[in-house]
Amino acid sequence: MKNFEFYNPTKVFFGKGETDRIGKEIKKYGKKVLLTYGGKSIKQNGLYDRVMKRLQENDLQVFELGGIQPNPRITSVRQGVEICKKEKIDIILAVGGGSVLDASKIMGIGVYYDGDPWDFMIKKAKPGHMLPLATILTLAATGSEMNHNAVINNDDTEEKLGLVDPAIFPTFSILDPENTMSVPRDQTIYGIADILAHVFEQYFHPTKEVPLQDRMAESIIKTVIETTPRLLLNLHDYDARANIMWCGTLALNHLISCGVEDDWATHDIQHELSAIYDIPHGAGLAIIFPQWMKYVLDVIPEKFAQFGERVWNIPRNGKSDRELGLAAIERTKSWFREIGAPVSLQEVGIGSDRLEEMAAKAVKRGPLGSAKKLYKEDVLAIYKMSL
Amino acid sequence: MKNFEFYNPTKVFFGKGETDRIGKEIKKYGKKVLLTYGGKSIKQNGLYDRVMKRLQENDLQVFELGGIQPNPRITSVRQGVEICKKEKIDIILAVGGGSVLDASKIMGIGVYYDGDPWDFMIKKAKPGHMLPLATILTLAATGSEMNHNAVINNDDTEEKLGLVDPAIFPTFSILDPENTMSVPRDQTIYGIADILAHVFEQYFHPTKEVPLQDRMAESIIKTVIETTPRLLLNLHDYDARANIMWCGTLALNHLISCGVEDDWATHDIQHELSAIYDIPHGAGLAIIFPQWMKYVLDVIPEKFAQFGERVWNIPRNGKSDRELGLAAIERTKSWFREIGAPVSLQEVGIGSDRLEEMAAKAVKRGPLGSAKKLYKEDVLAIYKMSL
Repeated sequence: MKNFEFYNPTKVFFGKGETDRIGKEIKKYGKKVLLTYGGKSIKQNGLYDRVMKRLQENDLQVFELGGIQPNPRITSVRQGVEICKKEKIDIILAVGGGSVLDASKIMGIGVYYDGDPWDFMIKKAKPGHMLPLATILTLAATGSEMNHNAVINNDDTEEKLGLVDPAIFPTFSILDPENTMSVPRDQTIYGIADILAHVFEQYFHPTKEVPLQDRMAESIIKTVIETTPRLLLNLHDYDARANIMWCGTLALNHLISCGVEDDWATHDIQHELSAIYDIPHGAGLAIIFPQWMKYVLDVIPEKFAQFGERVWNIPRNGKSDRELGLAAIERTKSWFREIGAPVSLQEVGIGSDRLEEMAAKAVKRGPLGSAKKLYKEDVLAIYKMSL
Repeated sequence: MKNFEFYNPTKVFFGKGETDRIGKEIKKYGKKVLLTYGGKSIKQNGLYDRVMKRLQENDLQVFELGGIQPNPRITSVRQGVEICKKEKIDIILAVGGGSVLDASKIMGIGVYYDGDPWDFMIKKAKPGHMLPLATILTLAATGSEMNHNAVINNDDTEEKLGLVDPAIFPTFSILDPENTMSVPRDQTIYGIADILAHVFEQYFHPTKEVPLQDRMAESIIKTVIETTPRLLLNLHDYDARANIMWCGTLALNHLISCGVEDDWATHDIQHELSAIYDIPHGAGLAIIFPQWMKYVLDVIPEKFAQFGERVWNIPRNGKSDRELGLAAIERTKSWFREIGAPVSLQEVGIGSDRLEEMAAKAVKRGPLGSAKKLYKEDVLAIYKMSL
C-alpha cells in the first residue's frame, strides 16, 4: 500500500423524499440562491416545481441559470460567475447530473477570482474558496456529488479538461433515487458505464498489498453488474435505482483509490472523443475501456485474472493469468454490448480521420496513465483498436 | 435500503513516516497543545520522543496528561478538561488507542461545558463544540480515529456508556502502521476481535436491498480473516499491520452502516463485562458474539447463510439457511479460538455469580439491538450460553 491522504467533508442525505429538505438546509447558508440546471427534464418531471416550492416556503431569493449542457461548457460557467458576483449569491444549488454539478463547482470558485474561470482548468489559477454548493443529483454517473472533481469543455479550443482540488467538494448533496426514475434508458446505460469506468480506473493498477481496496472496488463492480439487468427491465425499480446511485457515489468519492496508483488514461483518451464529437462520456468509456484493458493486459495480467475470477466467476481451469484476464476483458465488452452500450467508434459514427489529431492532443500535457505510461503512438493504437 | 445521512469530515494521513508531519499540522490550530496518552508503551517504543521532537521543532507549548487507562475512566476526562480550561489549550493531541482517543473527545467537548463531563454520557448534556482534536493511532481496533463515537467508564457507578455525536469527529488522524508494530500479541488479537465485531454489528441486520453495504462489510471481514494469521506469524509485517489498520478504520467510520438497521446489542452486553471485570473489550466481544449470533440466527437465517457462503466459503450442499448459518457461526467461534482469543467467560475468570445483575444493568435504558429486541431474560440467556 502507498501512503495516502483521505478527506471528504461532503454531507450526504440519501433516500426517498430527502428532496423536500432542500429549503430548510439551504437556508442555513444564506438568502440568495443560484439555481443551476440543464435542459427541460426537471421541468417536465416536476422536480423543478418541487424544489422551487421548498425554496420559496423558506423565503429564499432564487436566481436561475438553466441550459447547462452535457459535457458542460466554460461559457455556462462564465455566465454563472457573472450572476453570482452581480447578485451577491450566498449559495449555489445545482440540480442535475455531473455536468450541472461540475459547472457549478467551477462557478463557485470563479466567484473568488478576477480572471477567466478557464484558468483553473489549464492550471493557470489555483482555487481558493468556493461558494457553498448544494446539489440534488438526477443522474447516477459521475460521482461529482461527493468528490472534488470537475470536468469542463471549451468549444473554442476543443478541449475537455479536469480539475481535482479540495476546494470543490459540495457542501451537501441530496441523493434521492426517485429523482433518477425518469432518466431515459440510454442515459441510464451511459451512467452505468461511467460508474464502472471509474472503478476500473482505480482497480487496474500495479500496487500490491491493497486487499481491502481491491475487494471494495469489486463490491461496486459486482453490485452494478448484478443490478443493471434488473433496472433495465424496470427503469422505475426504486431499490435498483437506489443501489446504482450509491454505487455511483462510492465509485468516485476517492475511497477506493486510497493507497493505490490510479490510472485515468482511459478517461483522458475518451475526453478527446467528447471534446470533438460531443458523444456521451459514458458511451466513449464503454468503447475505449475494453481496448485499453487489452493494451495493458501484459503489464498486470494477475490483476485481470483476479478480475475474471472474482467478478465474472470465470473458472481457472488451468488458464494462465493472461488467458483468464483476456477472457474477463472479452466478458466485460460483451456485457457492455448486452446492456446496450456501444463498443466501437463506428457505432457512434466516429471514423479514422481525426485519430492522429486526438492522440496528439491527449498527450499534450504529458504521457497518460500509471499501469502503463501511454504516449501518442499508444493512444493512437487504442483508438484504432476501438474503430 | 433505508434513508440515511452520511457525514465524516475527519482528515486521514495514512502510511509509514506520516507521524513526522504532526508538528506542522498541529501548528495550523494554535500554540498550546494538550498531549494525552496511556501508559509507558509510547515512552518505551520511542513514539513519545519522536512526537515531542516534532512539536518542539514547531515551537508548540506542550502540556501533558498521561495514564489514561484502557476502558478509559471519566476521572481522566475530568483531569483533561481542567487542564484545557486552566491553560487555554488550543488543540488536543491524543497519542494512543481508542481509549485515549475517546477520553480526549469527551475532554474536547467538556471544555465548552460548565457541568461534569459524565453528563454527556448519561445524555443530561448535549455536546456543542469540541476543541480541535488530532490523533496518532497506536492500536488498530476501535475506529475512534475516524468516527464520532466515544465510550467512557465510570468506576463509581460501574457503568460503561457510549456517546455518538457529530461534534466529536477528530479533526485529523495520523494512521502510521509502524506505530502499531510493537503492540503485543494479545492486544493485537483483541483489536482484531473488536474490528470484526464492529462489522458484525452492522452486517447482521434485517434490512433488505443493501447489496453494496453487504459486500463492503464482507470485504472487511474477509481481509481481516486473510491477514490475521500472517500478522500473527510476524507482528512486524508492515503490510499486514497496514491492512488491519485500514480495516479497523473502515469498520467503524459508519460507511458500511449507511442505510441499514445496525444492531450493537453485543457491544452493550459486553460493556457490562468490562465495566465490572475490566476485561479487554475485544476479549469480551470474541466471547459474546458467537453466542449472540446463535441467539438471533432464526430471525435472519438467510443473512447467516450468506455469511457462511461468501465469507467462510462453506458449500451449500443442500443445507438449509439455518444449517449453513449455524456452520458459519461455529466456524467464526473456532476462528477466534485459533487466533488465540477467548471464547468463554470461564477463560477470562468470570463465573455465574453476577450475570443477573449485569443483565439487568444492560437493559437499564431499554431493550437492546435491532435484529432481535433483547430484554433482560435474553441478555441473561446469552451470558449463560457464554459461560
